Amino acid sequence: MQEEFIENMTSVAIIGASGYSGAELMRLLAGREDVCLKKVTAGASAGQRVDLLYPDLAGRVPLSFEEFLPGKSEQVDVAFVALPSGEGMRVVPGLRSWASRVIDLGGDFRLKSHALYEQYYKHAHTAVDLLSEAVYGLPELNAQKIARASLVANPGCYPTSAILALLPPLKEGLVDPERIVINSLSGVSGAGRSASVDMSFSELNENVRAYKLGVHQHVPEIESVLQEAIGQRVSVSFVPHLIPITRGIYTTVYTTLLQEVNEDEVLAAYDSYYRKAQFVRIKRQVPQIQAVVRTNFCDIGITIERRTGRLIIISVIDNLVKGAAGQAIQNMNLMLGLPENRGLA
Amino acid sequence: MQEEFIENMTSVAIIGASGYSGAELMRLLAGREDVCLKKVTAGASAGQRVDLLYPDLAGRVPLSFEEFLPGKSEQVDVAFVALPSGEGMRVVPGLRSWASRVIDLGGDFRLKSHALYEQYYKHAHTAVDLLSEAVYGLPELNAQKIARASLVANPGCYPTSAILALLPPLKEGLVDPERIVINSLSGVSGAGRSASVDMSFSELNENVRAYKLGVHQHVPEIESVLQEAIGQRVSVSFVPHLIPITRGIYTTVYTTLLQEVNEDEVLAAYDSYYRKAQFVRIKRQVPQIQAVVRTNFCDIGITIERRTGRLIIISVIDNLVKGAAGQAIQNMNLMLGLPENRGLA
Amino acid sequence: MQEEFIENMTSVAIIGASGYSGAELMRLLAGREDVCLKKVTAGASAGQRVDLLYPDLAGRVPLSFEEFLPGKSEQVDVAFVALPSGEGMRVVPGLRSWASRVIDLGGDFRLKSHALYEQYYKHAHTAVDLLSEAVYGLPELNAQKIARASLVANPGCYPTSAILALLPPLKEGLVDPERIVINSLSGVSGAGRSASVDMSFSELNENVRAYKLGVHQHVPEIESVLQEAIGQRVSVSFVPHLIPITRGIYTTVYTTLLQEVNEDEVLAAYDSYYRKAQFVRIKRQVPQIQAVVRTNFCDIGITIERRTGRLIIISVIDNLVKGAAGQAIQNMNLMLGLPENRGLA
Amino acid sequence: MQEEFIENMTSVAIIGASGYSGAELMRLLAGREDVCLKKVTAGASAGQRVDLLYPDLAGRVPLSFEEFLPGKSEQVDVAFVALPSGEGMRVVPGLRSWASRVIDLGGDFRLKSHALYEQYYKHAHTAVDLLSEAVYGLPELNAQKIARASLVANPGCYPTSAILALLPPLKEGLVDPERIVINSLSGVSGAGRSASVDMSFSELNENVRAYKLGVHQHVPEIESVLQEAIGQRVSVSFVPHLIPITRGIYTTVYTTLLQEVNEDEVLAAYDSYYRKAQFVRIKRQVPQIQAVVRTNFCDIGITIERRTGRLIIISVIDNLVKGAAGQAIQNMNLMLGLPENRGLA
Repeated sequence: MQEEFIENMTSVAIIGASGYSGAELMRLLAGREDVCLKKVTAGASAGQRVDLLYPDLAGRVPLSFEEFLPGKSEQVDVAFVALPSGEGMRVVPGLRSWASRVIDLGGDFRLKSHALYEQYYKHAHTAVDLLSEAVYGLPELNAQKIARASLVANPGCYPTSAILALLPPLKEGLVDPERIVINSLSGVSGAGRSASVDMSFSELNENVRAYKLGVHQHVPEIESVLQEAIGQRVSVSFVPHLIPITRGIYTTVYTTLLQEVNEDEVLAAYDSYYRKAQFVRIKRQVPQIQAVVRTNFCDIGITIERRTGRLIIISVIDNLVKGAAGQAIQNMNLMLGLPENRGLA
Repeated sequence: MQEEFIENMTSVAIIGASGYSGAELMRLLAGREDVCLKKVTAGASAGQRVDLLYPDLAGRVPLSFEEFLPGKSEQVDVAFVALPSGEGMRVVPGLRSWASRVIDLGGDFRLKSHALYEQYYKHAHTAVDLLSEAVYGLPELNAQKIARASLVANPGCYPTSAILALLPPLKEGLVDPERIVINSLSGVSGAGRSASVDMSFSELNENVRAYKLGVHQHVPEIESVLQEAIGQRVSVSFVPHLIPITRGIYTTVYTTLLQEVNEDEVLAAYDSYYRKAQFVRIKRQVPQIQAVVRTNFCDIGITIERRTGRLIIISVIDNLVKGAAGQAIQNMNLMLGLPENRGLA
Repeated sequence: MQEEFIENMTSVAIIGASGYSGAELMRLLAGREDVCLKKVTAGASAGQRVDLLYPDLAGRVPLSFEEFLPGKSEQVDVAFVALPSGEGMRVVPGLRSWASRVIDLGGDFRLKSHALYEQYYKHAHTAVDLLSEAVYGLPELNAQKIARASLVANPGCYPTSAILALLPPLKEGLVDPERIVINSLSGVSGAGRSASVDMSFSELNENVRAYKLGVHQHVPEIESVLQEAIGQRVSVSFVPHLIPITRGIYTTVYTTLLQEVNEDEVLAAYDSYYRKAQFVRIKRQVPQIQAVVRTNFCDIGITIERRTGRLIIISVIDNLVKGAAGQAIQNMNLMLGLPENRGLA
Repeated sequence: MQEEFIENMTSVAIIGASGYSGAELMRLLAGREDVCLKKVTAGASAGQRVDLLYPDLAGRVPLSFEEFLPGKSEQVDVAFVALPSGEGMRVVPGLRSWASRVIDLGGDFRLKSHALYEQYYKHAHTAVDLLSEAVYGLPELNAQKIARASLVANPGCYPTSAILALLPPLKEGLVDPERIVINSLSGVSGAGRSASVDMSFSELNENVRAYKLGVHQHVPEIESVLQEAIGQRVSVSFVPHLIPITRGIYTTVYTTLLQEVNEDEVLAAYDSYYRKAQFVRIKRQVPQIQAVVRTNFCDIGITIERRTGRLIIISVIDNLVKGAAGQAIQNMNLMLGLPENRGLA
């Protein structure tokens, strides 16, 4: 059996492995007997042992970060790109010559429209020809396309929570697609591993801060994915807030009901839409972040506010797992024809 | 001058002083030379020294908690009632025989309608005759009435942040009063000093939890105060969330613009409405909780989201100060004809 | 292969499963294909679904808590007892008629001397005859005895970190066994799932509190286990502190060197003592709690302070894993002849 | 009376006001009617409004940070220097021509021996001639010298807590001066306002980290101040730990008793030593950080551990107040002949 594994082993590289998403990929892949982590690259940390940056990986990932040398690499089955948006599009084209499948955890291949990309990301797109080929890697929406894809754009953390919250009622026509308010709270790890006063403990502890009001790059991602899914214009207000926790996203969505429905009917719509989804749990209680931290689950709960005619939806994930590395591995599993939850259960 | 102070000294009692609002009242009053704290009462903690419960008050409040004995008390100028909602209405009527002025920090006298009270608070109101007399103690709205009042209902913490955020644009007719979404985050001290698993550190740390969706007792408070202020029906969705900080409320309000305005015009409306308000600061940056913690300030910032036609307002306070004890003292100052900011600057 | 597993499946009960150690046992056992969790009992929560108390277990532990009915149970291979000290000794004797092996996570069977037990635990011991039979379940010290035991006393969380830190230098005679200072910091989950003001978020956040100075029940546990291990009198000062984190113990041990040694020699002694220990990592950097949280590892680092002649040792664990449930499972694995790290890697 | 104040007003400059100690100085001075804050300087933040860096100071400190231009300044009564160690000694000599009194909050003038300074601070001392003149600004030890000083070296935060804990028993000869262990926990603000991954929220939250074991620059400060105070050699082990709180130092000191004493006798020695100290509170309970946060108090509690013959002392302060800015103002008050607690009560 050991031999069989070796034969079938998936070889993996992580480009940009020194950030939090990269580290979470290493954490999740380290436990798998069917995956061989061949190469992890980094910028400033190149040359350093992985466990000196991430001591919890001592004895589990016996690698050092390598410099990324485009073109100079042996073949791997899957390359994860965990670089900041703007950098992914510079390495992905070259990567495809030595990696059969590429999963980009950044934002560079999530929007089909490069004009929209340039408006929100504030720089030109340098790999426009790949945009049509890239598949948006939300397995609960695109499982079949992902299975056939060679380039997957892993969703943003906020969009994952918001889109999973909104798909069932929008698909069913229960709520107005043009009157949606999305209020999200994020743990600080979502901002990445960075040296800045703004991200320092003393500035964030016992504090809350909204940011990028009205201009966050996840707005067009949420709108365009939902639009394509329902074939109708979707318009959202979205305000992200940084709160003093390390992991987790708590998204509260306010929608306006178009039909007279009760909570049981709405819950039934969710249950039905997600009946095959292994990582979405429809809750009869108010979701909590602690329930999903360090898991690939998205927990969703709903309330109908009769007085105002609103359906309020709460959706929670771990930003580094279902919002990044876990979902990326879910996508890898689908691309390789493996059980979707391998290494994630 | 010392003598003059003694002559004019205000004598104060705090009924229900062992909770967090009561302790904050003691903290704020302890520093004042014009106030004499004569009596602090408590239930289970009666008989105990104040500094054993609140060690930061050692050497500052040399009192012990007394049992509350209705009717048996010497006269005081001001009595603060910091009891849970439902208990205040049982002591306030009797209190008025020995306290010239009463400020209730609980919810019992905030709603004019006892029917609404009973619907949201889930028990009968036992002092209905005082409802019409009680003045809603939001100084930025009701300064003159407060100055003449003998019974003030101190606003709830969430309503303080929400109402201050909404008054200027509603007064100016800038936004739709029936399409308002209020998303609030609260520090845990807002839930009071309580022995419960739900409020334990391990359950709240690294967690977020929405609660009382659609049924929170602050909904009718927000709606009715705003309605009275603008003479129009107001309807709000309001979802409070508990986040792992001790103090602070972060309220993000989503409103729909009725007019074409720009941010400068809206800011001018706020500046104008609050030009005499000593504790409201209109910010050109996104407000943060750290800026108001342990102060009586409410910081407000706004953004216009052109794409959706929404005005988004952010309002932050310290729930124990501007949201409770600080505002109560601001009310006391007004009632006594003292400078509004005495002991709060 | 599936069948083979079913044949060999270990049946398990958890008595007192509603607390944090019990929940962590469920978490760790839920992932195992060779274990069948047959019964979880609780007091006040009996009758409730497990996932309502611990929502992260939704879909993973499809059980409800049962009342514990002594004597009325089908046979299980292993029973974990996760009751408060004082309660374990009341159920363990009866348990042995239907559980082949019992692992008690409380303090009732850790001390061989019932006099010492009664001095520190402040109540009589009611199962004195089992004390000599119980094996102290620190696998790095007692692996062979544990493998043959039918009753294992799982170590306390503080003693686990302190004893693992001290065994090598004491065994080697490097440090004075009668001049040891142990300063420990603990996450709040170590205090259990409890409803008390003292454990509430607002009281513990942004705070530190030492407790039980000089009288903590882990003092005799540390001293007697070390004494037996080295055959010499051991005397320690031990001060535990509660700090605002959920999980983790950080133990700083100050010892007085009896020999001229350098750090390399001391590290070599540790490496040698723990060469077969799968869960002890000897670090060349200062240990951190984040490196061990949610793992069964104990990370140890040392410094020689030439100026004072002291060897300072730092030892960190996750109090709920290596300090409780993880170590209990490590013990179960040893008792069943399974790989020591099954379900813990 | 207003005029009298203006006449007597103390003019103040803060050199290096953009860090956390500088900001705390502004916070404390802003409330004083007898102090005029004339100039605040900064490096990178020069030119920026104070309230953009510290929004809580909006409306309270209406200044902008200036560049520090040595020699070019009008006269002030008091200059606070809140620069990192190594920078203070470069500005202090020049400062003295335009500031009558200088209080340096850094480490450059705390050690009398420049050799010791250079050993621990790892760079040469460039103002050696001022070392003998500088007075160590611990008011509880040196009040009279401080009153006459023109250059005060404000103590470090750890030394403040450790020295106040140790002075009474050492002075009384109760404990062995050469067998002292000091274990300290510090809030993160003690590390200053800095942009580094190590100080980022995600790295420090839910974590603990000891640092600078055996080589911290506060070791010679603690030892030499105590040595001078008691005229005997003092030797300490000192390990500082960073814990996830913003403010506060929790110091646990382990000493060996030289005499048979009971707790009452030791407490009496503390009470007597500190009978005139307005900011030291001797507690009969275990001290907590919450009791001193945002105050200038040092709370001290003790336990005698009969079994080991040790006196354990716990001492807590707010690192930014009694450990920095508050103590600096206490020193200023003494230097100016003002009541010691003005602006600090």
